[in-house]
Amino acid sequence: MSQKQENEKIAGCSFSVHPMSDDFKEKIKGALEKIDTSKVWMNTDEVTTTVRGDIEHVFDVTRAVFLRVAETGVHTALNATYSVGCPGDSEGDQYTGHNEKPGNGLWDVDQYTSAKFSLYPMGGGDYMDVIYKGIERMKESGIEVSEAHYATKLSGDTNAMFKGLEEVFRDTEESGSSHTVMTVAMSANSPSRERGDK
Amino acid sequence: MSQKQENEKIAGCSFSVHPMSDDFKEKIKGALEKIDTSKVWMNTDEVTTTVRGDIEHVFDVTRAVFLRVAETGVHTALNATYSVGCPGDSEGDQYTGHNEKPGNGLWDVDQYTSAKFSLYPMGGGDYMDVIYKGIERMKESGIEVSEAHYATKLSGDTNAMFKGLEEVFRDTEESGSSHTVMTVAMSANSPSRERGDK
Repeated sequence: MSQKQENEKIAGCSFSVHPMSDDFKEKIKGALEKIDTSKVWMNTDEVTTTVRGDIEHVFDVTRAVFLRVAETGVHTALNATYSVGCPGDSEGDQYTGHNEKPGNGLWDVDQYTSAKFSLYPMGGGDYMDVIYKGIERMKESGIEVSEAHYATKLSGDTNAMFKGLEEVFRDTEESGSSHTVMTVAMSANSPSRERGDK
Repeated sequence: MSQKQENEKIAGCSFSVHPMSDDFKEKIKGALEKIDTSKVWMNTDEVTTTVRGDIEHVFDVTRAVFLRVAETGVHTALNATYSVGCPGDSEGDQYTGHNEKPGNGLWDVDQYTSAKFSLYPMGGGDYMDVIYKGIERMKESGIEVSEAHYATKLSGDTNAMFKGLEEVFRDTEESGSSHTVMTVAMSANSPSRERGDK
């Protein structure tokens, strides 16, 4: 285990990606083949896929999965729960090599998406203050931010959105939240949007 | 507003249902036409659908949506965030009539499903104790319970699962959690299961 990892809590994400298509299996498989998952621990069961590793790699892999499935053009939904510091978590199941910078790139992909995210800073502190700060932080990411029940709604460029979400997650963890959870529901190529139901 | 509702906090759920099929729109629309949503406030945007009302009605409607889409036979995923007591929540957007018992029935439907659920009791208290009690409570529901990263895995009958989840949610709220959040990822007719990847 590298020094870097000894000093960091293990981050992770339990997610599912849903291409609304008869050949959803091929679309998911095709997307995964194009993605660098060598820097995270990854496991799929019949409900979700789990990735574990450094925060930057966890966000890099989930962003790449969403972009690669969305680029097939079908209506694509991602549901993701990011977590760091869960007291019930195990020490195992993480990539233990000397990780370098995330390798998935795709920063030039132009993909509009709508999302809702919620932040749950567990384990003490004025959690609502932390949540409101996270929402303000998202507004600086160049994407549209609006209120929704149980979540904050986001609309705009997928890469800017993931960058903002990663920063909110990181800020929350660094602000003293011992156990940070963030849930994200994301939708690309939605027929509702074509109808103008923004 | 009825006396009952004046005395209760507004519960709600932000969810999305994903039939993995080319005609996903028809499948969702067909399911919704068969469901009694008259006892909840309901709104759909391009990311999620939100239902608000009494706890029993919120669970009844989300259970019926999942069962009605799953009965089409396609791989169906549900992602749902149940919430009660959110301090940032508004008072509005709830059904204000004199609600009676949930009307969707479907209790005789036999549908196997796999799921992962997480409980986030916010706003004070020993939240991990509450979570562990919730997991123990699920084991009494007659469904298989196992550990997963960031969640507890469930396998078994859909109706038993929803009944258990509703009880865990209710117990958590009644145990003094001022703001209770429960996330559920559910999967029916999964090809992974057919392959035996349980």
